[in-house]
Amino acid sequence: MKLASYIHNGRESFGPVIGNGVGDARGRLSRFHSLLDVLRADALDEMRRAFAGVRADYPLKDVELLPPIVLPEKILCVGVNYGDRNAEYKDGSDAPKYPSLFFRTPGSVTGHDQPIVCPPESIQFDYEGEIVLVIGRGGRRIPAEEALSHVAGLTLCNEGSVRDWLRHGKFNVTQGKNFDRSGSIGPWMVTVDEIDWNRPLHLTTTVNCEVRQDDTTENLIFSFSDLIAYITTFTTLKPGDCIVTGTPTGAGARFDPPRWLVPGDVVEVEVPEIGTLRNIVIAEP
Amino acid sequence: MKLASYIHNGRESFGPVIGNGVGDARGRLSRFHSLLDVLRADALDEMRRAFAGVRADYPLKDVELLPPIVLPEKILCVGVNYGDRNAEYKDGSDAPKYPSLFFRTPGSVTGHDQPIVCPPESIQFDYEGEIVLVIGRGGRRIPAEEALSHVAGLTLCNEGSVRDWLRHGKFNVTQGKNFDRSGSIGPWMVTVDEIDWNRPLHLTTTVNCEVRQDDTTENLIFSFSDLIAYITTFTTLKPGDCIVTGTPTGAGARFDPPRWLVPGDVVEVEVPEIGTLRNIVIAEP
Repeated sequence: MKLASYIHNGRESFGPVIGNGVGDARGRLSRFHSLLDVLRADALDEMRRAFAGVRADYPLKDVELLPPIVLPEKILCVGVNYGDRNAEYKDGSDAPKYPSLFFRTPGSVTGHDQPIVCPPESIQFDYEGEIVLVIGRGGRRIPAEEALSHVAGLTLCNEGSVRDWLRHGKFNVTQGKNFDRSGSIGPWMVTVDEIDWNRPLHLTTTVNCEVRQDDTTENLIFSFSDLIAYITTFTTLKPGDCIVTGTPTGAGARFDPPRWLVPGDVVEVEVPEIGTLRNIVIAEP
Repeated sequence: MKLASYIHNGRESFGPVIGNGVGDARGRLSRFHSLLDVLRADALDEMRRAFAGVRADYPLKDVELLPPIVLPEKILCVGVNYGDRNAEYKDGSDAPKYPSLFFRTPGSVTGHDQPIVCPPESIQFDYEGEIVLVIGRGGRRIPAEEALSHVAGLTLCNEGSVRDWLRHGKFNVTQGKNFDRSGSIGPWMVTVDEIDWNRPLHLTTTVNCEVRQDDTTENLIFSFSDLIAYITTFTTLKPGDCIVTGTPTGAGARFDPPRWLVPGDVVEVEVPEIGTLRNIVIAEP
């Protein structure tokens, strides 16, 4: 099941993607106001039953997609998590012993097919294609061997970054990762029953159809399970929390000279099992 | 007006501190469910009128205080923001040009007089006394000269840190700042009409009554106004967002040998205009 959150005629709703359309779960299951509510109630099966054999309520082309979880409590991002990426920093350091983690605010990401915004403060606007774990059942100190059973679904992220602002802080990348609408999450969440965990996921990022990032989850330094186990050592994961699992080599900053995003560029992040997250870059209006 | 959020007889409410008690705003102003709702509705004056001449509904001793904003969208913390603190790092660096920023989750802080939790993964549990700005009117790109008009009130934070976990990540302090209930915010929010911005605020942190941190906001590297202006360059602040403005010298890590918190220690963070935030340290149950 692919589950989308969206605005239709000015009204926010969510529901399954059915062919070229979407179902309206707020209309059909009025006790839930959002996909987050469904995850909190552990009610994905109820969603599935409610839409069995049902036709789409609206064509996809008539809705504005939002990030599948509109207001998660946490969007926790992993830095430097693909095999060759640590080497890109050319700082002579060994592969990291622990993941580097930072938060993004909900306001820093928009949905599929919405513009992402290059702010006037920088020209160093960059893409990072990533796979997102959406937590279903929460927990603390989840063992790695049980971790995947806590994932409700997967989605994609363009973890858009303002590179020069990443280095403003003495110890943290916060500001360069949190410009309003500088990134995106979507197009929808694919529930884990559609994922074969034994097959690596193949992630590509293109800019104007040119492949820039191309890697698989076989190359992850910290696997999805390891990330969940490590993260829940310190924090309780909750339903709807999003873990953005890191980007492969090939971001624009790593070219010589760097290839920054400019208004009009189209960035697409794709994993076949999930879909394609597409955004056009605009200058801040 | 001092505004507290609390649990009384298993029911969550909030309201003004009146003498040794608190008012019940959920009972008297039923359209608001939380102090965050009041800030979103810009309704502090309505609160004030509703409780004019009213007696407390419950004695403070009968309620469990929560952080005044129970579920803010953002708890944004500033590292290294008091004059002598950069020197403590002994890395030969100049005073920072920009603030270092990181997020804490709501679950990483508890309220006044609740225990703060030293996790079994570390013995390097440390305090950091700080002043918190609670945003009233939100905004983006707020000029420094208008910034204080966006602050609804002040509260205190013990920005409890697990020192060895701060250095796990390559570029970020996230994990050492986000152990569940490792810090605290409270005891309440004091509205800005009770603050004279022309007088520096005097912050002290004690451990078992011994003064460890003692400084004033005259010594801030980035003033409250500068922080708001800088932060809103990249993100939109919203009502209820909390900016934790940095800690003076004197955290336990800076002693030789370091003086880590141990179960039974009592940490108190105090600013006379705001109050005293007190927490006892426990080992994780």
